Order: sequence, then C-alpha cells, then structure tokens
Amino acid sequence: MTPQHLSKVYRGYIICLNAQDWKSLGRFVHHDVRHNGRQIGLSGYREMLENDFRQIPDLSFNIQLLISDPPYVSSRLLFDCTPTGEFLGLKIDGKQVSFTENVIYEFREAKIVEVWSVIDKPAIEAQLRFSINQQQDAAQ
Amino acid sequence: MTPQHLSKVYRGYIICLNAQDWKSLGRFVHHDVRHNGRQIGLSGYREMLENDFRQIPDLSFNIQLLISDPPYVSSRLLFDCTPTGEFLGLKIDGKQVSFTENVIYEFREAKIVEVWSVIDKPAIEAQLRFSINQQQDAAQ
Repeated sequence: MTPQHLSKVYRGYIICLNAQDWKSLGRFVHHDVRHNGRQIGLSGYREMLENDFRQIPDLSFNIQLLISDPPYVSSRLLFDCTPTGEFLGLKIDGKQVSFTENVIYEFREAKIVEVWSVIDKPAIEAQLRFSINQQQDAAQ
Repeated sequence: MTPQHLSKVYRGYIICLNAQDWKSLGRFVHHDVRHNGRQIGLSGYREMLENDFRQIPDLSFNIQLLISDPPYVSSRLLFDCTPTGEFLGLKIDGKQVSFTENVIYEFREAKIVEVWSVIDKPAIEAQLRFSINQQQDAAQ
C-alpha cells in the first residue's frame, strides 16, 4: 500500500468515528486490535469509543497533521469539546477545553491493528487552572 | 530527501542528544525552531534540553517507533529514568519511572524546524500512585 492510499484509508476511519458509524468500524479496525499495549479487540475498541462519546457528547476528531509511512500512520488530532463530567481523572463538568493527541497506528490488511496514543493532559490541566483563576478574580 | 535519509538524520539527532553534544545541536535543529507552538530558537531549544538533563541526570532517549514521511518524522520515544525532583509538576524525588513521548517533527533544510510533543503524564502518575500504595502496604 502506498503512503497516499494509507492516508486515504485513515481519513475514512476518522469520518467513520465522527459519524459514530459503529457498524462500519470493522472496515478500519482489525479484529485483534491492541490499544496502548492492551489487547482489546474490535468490540473493546468500539466500547472505548462509545464511552468517549458518552463522556464527551460533542466529541469530534480533527486531523492537524497526518504522516504516512506504511504500515504506520501517525497523526496529531485536535479536540475542542465539552466533557460533561470527569475526563482523564479531571473534573471538567461541562467546561469547554481544547487539547491534542499524538497517536501512532500500525496497519495490517489495511486495518488498524495497534494504536499508541498520548493525550496532552497537562494542556487540559492548564485550562482548568486558568478557568479557576478567572472565577476567583471575578469573585474579588 | 527520501524517507530513509530523513530517518538517518533523525537517528543522528538522537545520538547527539544522548551524548549531550550541544556543540553539534545546530547540525540537526534549525535556528528558528518552534516547540509546541512557541518560537524558542536554537538557543532556547538547547536550554530546554540542558534543563531536562539537570532534572533527570540519567535521561536517555530511546526510539521505539520511527515513522518518516518527508518533511515530517514521527517517533515514539521511551524513557526509563529517575528525575531527581519535580517533573511535569509531579514530585518524583528520585523514583524510577518509565514513560513514553509521541512526538512529531517538521524538517526544513534537513533540520528540525517545528516540534509537536506529547508526554504520557498519566502513565507517570499511575506509577507514583502504585509506589505510594506499596509504601502504605509495607507500613501496615
């Protein structure tokens, strides 16, 4: 598969996520998929994503950078959303936050078989601190 | 530049970091380099790295995955080290921690001109919690 073809497959995967088209997820995600070292399989992967959308109803995946070197894809994803309760152990409670995720995927048979993801939690913490400081300033 | 050539340049950069060969840093890092959206320039980049090695004397960059799609490189770096005091706002105080960084680089004129880095802070937090739990168990 060429880098261009793999990029196209990956963009199809992101469209599938944003449409929450879970019936089509198996076209992009391998039955034996692993996520950050854990074997979760396609059903576990779907559960993880469904849970993400429950925690973050306005979740949307936006590709900032896409790097294709078959069988690997790396992307930088941008999120601008409002988690309703906790997210990554942080109490967000409906605040609007922006953050990024740098993620690497390995493909097998044109499907994602391994994912290594890191979310920029310190960026969210900084926004929550800023939000608290603003509230304190307003109360004074 | 081919993907293979760019990978070779990147591996040279990592050797330079691990050798703390700051005199050679300008061979790999562009004068106008930006890091996570901040224009820090070559001298700021060197200061950032020197500070990392002060906080983590046994710091060593290990490439787990390397993805090359000129002018971009993405890598997953593994760290297994003992920060002496604080790191990412966490009190490490000489504990041994393992964590990863997913990082994307843009090259210009065969030098790194932009870096987008995300470090897996939740992984470090989990290790610190585990360490505290172990101490509590030992004290009981």
